[in-house]
Amino acid sequence: MTSIGYLGPRGTFTEEALQSRLADAYDEMIPYPTVPSVLLAVESGEIDSGMVPIENSVEGSVNATIDTLTFETDLVIEREVVYPISQMLLARPGVGIGEVKAVLSHPQATAQCARFLSEKLPGVEVRASNSTAEAALEVSESDEPLAAISTEHAAGIYGLDVIARDIEDYASNATRFIVVGRKHNPPSGNDKTSMVCFILQNRPGSLLEILSQFAFRAINLTKIESRPTRKVLGEYCFFIDVEGHSEVEPLAGALEALKPALRKLKLLGSYPAATPPD
Amino acid sequence: MTSIGYLGPRGTFTEEALQSRLADAYDEMIPYPTVPSVLLAVESGEIDSGMVPIENSVEGSVNATIDTLTFETDLVIEREVVYPISQMLLARPGVGIGEVKAVLSHPQATAQCARFLSEKLPGVEVRASNSTAEAALEVSESDEPLAAISTEHAAGIYGLDVIARDIEDYASNATRFIVVGRKHNPPSGNDKTSMVCFILQNRPGSLLEILSQFAFRAINLTKIESRPTRKVLGEYCFFIDVEGHSEVEPLAGALEALKPALRKLKLLGSYPAATPPD
Repeated sequence: MTSIGYLGPRGTFTEEALQSRLADAYDEMIPYPTVPSVLLAVESGEIDSGMVPIENSVEGSVNATIDTLTFETDLVIEREVVYPISQMLLARPGVGIGEVKAVLSHPQATAQCARFLSEKLPGVEVRASNSTAEAALEVSESDEPLAAISTEHAAGIYGLDVIARDIEDYASNATRFIVVGRKHNPPSGNDKTSMVCFILQNRPGSLLEILSQFAFRAINLTKIESRPTRKVLGEYCFFIDVEGHSEVEPLAGALEALKPALRKLKLLGSYPAATPPD
Repeated sequence: MTSIGYLGPRGTFTEEALQSRLADAYDEMIPYPTVPSVLLAVESGEIDSGMVPIENSVEGSVNATIDTLTFETDLVIEREVVYPISQMLLARPGVGIGEVKAVLSHPQATAQCARFLSEKLPGVEVRASNSTAEAALEVSESDEPLAAISTEHAAGIYGLDVIARDIEDYASNATRFIVVGRKHNPPSGNDKTSMVCFILQNRPGSLLEILSQFAFRAINLTKIESRPTRKVLGEYCFFIDVEGHSEVEPLAGALEALKPALRKLKLLGSYPAATPPD
């Protein structure tokens, strides 16, 4: 019996990505209300793995994921899933777009659809929900002609119809999710590695010193983000993704060479690289 | 008459920071509903300047600010404001914490106070609002004993009492706001410069090439963030803040030397560096 927790409630984008890509890998899938609650449940052993968004999502804050992994847990990223996300307008069967009295969604989803709302539903009230999934649930339970900005997946769960498709103002990027657990992956031959580098002084060239260890070995960086640490004033950390596995050359040697330049190196795991979104 | 727009509605953290730090600099302060609407109103000339959060905020998405400045406008960052943020629990005068029937706030603010809510208000319903300010407004207009997670500033505007202070689970970082406009600043002697570097290939060493131009000249980086661009698949951009003014050496020379290595360099402005938060 393997269990996976995910950012819920039922009907979120995270659940949609999990069921679409990894349904066969777990015996049990359990929704949790927040990103930290998913990750802490894995840390405590309550569940085997957890799936949360890490880039470009509506419901889960990227910062919550990165901060919890960096400062609160010693978990390992086991897998990444890149999944295309699209906002849909959902209503109870029989409700047409002209009858909609109010639109419900998470404020960030509403903001992503601002142009659609002002053109197709001008003057219609916008109500906030705690998630796009909760919006769909509320619409399904109301007697009023309401609509939710939510997922196609949630339409199926809550018995709603999709009355307008792909309503976000900008063709949305895919969202990147990660599956975290407690076991390190062996090399797969096509891996990525995530890490957090802590440096003590934000002095000119300190980042260059780190990156040169990768560049000299022709290791490609796929992501870099600087963040102030929450603990020490003036201490910075860099959240870095590179191609390769931490136990395989050339990355193994680069990590070894990095250590003297850093206050701390926290490896967040090596995992098979997702193919780019279709 | 100079006017400034800001991320509203009345009572947001952005308004609080604006009134606390820059109240004397503008004749008129106008709330806008979203980050892009503030920035586009400056771009169109409807207002002279705009103030929006760019790092660590609850209400305004950092991505909305960075993406709009990068891809949609040709605005200039004129100023930065670093302001400490704290979440407060607000209720109508006379309502004690034991009577509270529901807590209202933006879902991200609610998430930041999860531990407080589970310890002090276990089982109490949590309702979503479009902003922390809207939550305060709703609490002030309701006959029920409700509470809002919002700002001290909003308590004053909507006639509410602070019934619990500093309720976020982690001592919050300060939020960084920027003021954008259309005029380039002359050097002040203590400046920062923000820019977006577009590179065509995410090849090993391309970022190193950029950073070495700064490091060779002992120019300190204060922020770096990689982002996929929305236009071209495989094109990346780096959002970079450095110390110095773009028209003053050594930064002027570094920017000149950078250009051949980049597909495009978009300068977002040079502005006086904020003193660190108190």
